[in-house]
Amino acid sequence: MPNVWIAGAGMTRFGKRQESLPDLVAEAARSALSRAQLETPDSIVVASMNPEEFIGEGNFASRIATHMGFAHVPALRVETATSSGAAAIYSGFAGVAAGLYRSVLVVGGEKMTHLPTPRVSELIGRSIDPHERSYGATMPALAGLVTRALMAATGVTLKEISQVSVKNHAHGALNPYAHFREPLSPDAVLESRIVADPLRLYHCCPISDGAAAVVLSADPSPVRIAGIGQGTDTLAVRYRESLVSFRATRAAARAAYAMAGFGAERVEVAEVHDAFSPFELMALEDLGLVPPGKAARATLSGETALDGRLPVNPSGGLKARGHPLAATGIAQVVELFWQLIGQAHGRQVTATVGLSHSIGGLATNNWVILLERVG
Amino acid sequence: MPNVWIAGAGMTRFGKRQESLPDLVAEAARSALSRAQLETPDSIVVASMNPEEFIGEGNFASRIATHMGFAHVPALRVETATSSGAAAIYSGFAGVAAGLYRSVLVVGGEKMTHLPTPRVSELIGRSIDPHERSYGATMPALAGLVTRALMAATGVTLKEISQVSVKNHAHGALNPYAHFREPLSPDAVLESRIVADPLRLYHCCPISDGAAAVVLSADPSPVRIAGIGQGTDTLAVRYRESLVSFRATRAAARAAYAMAGFGAERVEVAEVHDAFSPFELMALEDLGLVPPGKAARATLSGETALDGRLPVNPSGGLKARGHPLAATGIAQVVELFWQLIGQAHGRQVTATVGLSHSIGGLATNNWVILLERVG
Repeated sequence: MPNVWIAGAGMTRFGKRQESLPDLVAEAARSALSRAQLETPDSIVVASMNPEEFIGEGNFASRIATHMGFAHVPALRVETATSSGAAAIYSGFAGVAAGLYRSVLVVGGEKMTHLPTPRVSELIGRSIDPHERSYGATMPALAGLVTRALMAATGVTLKEISQVSVKNHAHGALNPYAHFREPLSPDAVLESRIVADPLRLYHCCPISDGAAAVVLSADPSPVRIAGIGQGTDTLAVRYRESLVSFRATRAAARAAYAMAGFGAERVEVAEVHDAFSPFELMALEDLGLVPPGKAARATLSGETALDGRLPVNPSGGLKARGHPLAATGIAQVVELFWQLIGQAHGRQVTATVGLSHSIGGLATNNWVILLERVG
Repeated sequence: MPNVWIAGAGMTRFGKRQESLPDLVAEAARSALSRAQLETPDSIVVASMNPEEFIGEGNFASRIATHMGFAHVPALRVETATSSGAAAIYSGFAGVAAGLYRSVLVVGGEKMTHLPTPRVSELIGRSIDPHERSYGATMPALAGLVTRALMAATGVTLKEISQVSVKNHAHGALNPYAHFREPLSPDAVLESRIVADPLRLYHCCPISDGAAAVVLSADPSPVRIAGIGQGTDTLAVRYRESLVSFRATRAAARAAYAMAGFGAERVEVAEVHDAFSPFELMALEDLGLVPPGKAARATLSGETALDGRLPVNPSGGLKARGHPLAATGIAQVVELFWQLIGQAHGRQVTATVGLSHSIGGLATNNWVILLERVG
């Protein structure tokens, strides 16, 4: 299989945006294409979780391609709920690896802040098993359940969980693309209002607008996709083998490491899916980045902070950079690309290998992508 | 690039179905897997145009994988409006061709008949350029516009257009999987009620439920995908170079023929996207299957009938087999697979090369797939 390279990357500022989704997507795409010095890509993969209901538009690959002036470039849409951006990178990767295209523009985005929060919650809730949904399950409710199980099984405390939010806000404060740029104190997290016991508001990522893009290429450039893996699990949470470890993350990591030919020991920076702060602790262990049972302590001791042994979510993560669903899996790779080529101004870490981890639904469809700077 | 083979194919009967969409999809998938003698595929690609609004369910790849007992098999969803099924075949093709998977189950389906027709029309209308939609454009309205232009530019008559419906109903009558199994007289077509001038009811495909599936494999079997091509055009119809030829069809055919290394001269059977009967005439010429300006006469003279020189839509096409959106692009390939291996009982033609043609939106995102029986 030939190498697939990242020729360029770009994103919009995440947050409450006034622009339309097509405008946001075009802004991110233009930025990635310009970095790649590419005028017209051979192909386009678009990610958006549910543009039909979020903004009332369908046929979204054609909508976006036309809007960007690329009506004659083949474009398709890929969706795996909240990990759609990572799935789109897989799709572009496969197209280049198969030799079908020399270059693929992968772009994803979401516009959500114009809708009332209960409506957003309803739309995101379509990702939940229908039976569990019929009993009132929402994403935060299920995340609360997982968090309670995690605390009971492992002794992880709310203070340790809150430290994820504190760290990621400290990182986000350094990222001009982040939704939130204010540091957060541990007390502020613990005193924020309850969303789904034991999760408080500042344990949860915000509702954000935004878009992100990468250009994948068969032509060598400094950063390659060393591995990409998908892992899945039952839609229904009640059928899971475990609540305190995500099988989908473990399977995705296994597949990505196998493709790369190396394991967690080479990862020097990671962007993980902290839609809820305890998920970052679970991810660190499921990905093999810290030994079992050590994620909370590693976080509290600063090991995963920008200046620690293994910086995690230098962008601010979903918590502070924001989470425009289908943009997120791509934005993680954008951040890693910037980190690996030394252009993460003000929040730069030292790394040649980076890992991104994206969760679809309540960990039904997860992805791990490994980037490596070569030479 | 290694060959990609069709190891198995299957579909449900199309029509008004009582089963849920996940049940229909599972039925088609089981049938294809059984024909492929495969217990568990390495990967799954799911196509459905808009399950969120048609049946209120999202995260649909995980939903379907879990429902089929494949929760631990990687699954993603692909969408290009009404050609989503063909796009899903492309996605599976790329995965096998890149060497990422040995086998991919590609399955698509739609459940539509439970909704009132105006609601279906509204949902399908999301595929139209927002500006044109704001002026009241619907799919039939735009198809009517195209048909008027076609009649004015080429002298094609309503009688010739109606012959497409008559022929496809005659074929559908022989297909146990078809939505409609009754022959249709030319008079019945011309006397049916107006839908969008000059199109009458029997110039338009019905609203159908159903699902279809193929198993793609790296292991040789009698039928391979010789070529697959995508072609696109502006979302807005008003910006097209021509109304009476679809650029997206021409570009898709060019790409598919280039990959296959042969052209229209080798095609012996075709499944084309006759969502509206005049589209079949346009497709025959855009695909190079008949010389420019000759499609109407070829149809009227029986050249495209089951016993003609080039049988077109032996399944009954979208008009008679039905059009459950994302199922259609796959069902076309299922029919060609059956034709090529000699299992199209009662409607068998003689062919070693078949072509399928799928239209997304109003010809914004089209696909051409070439199948070849080898040995």
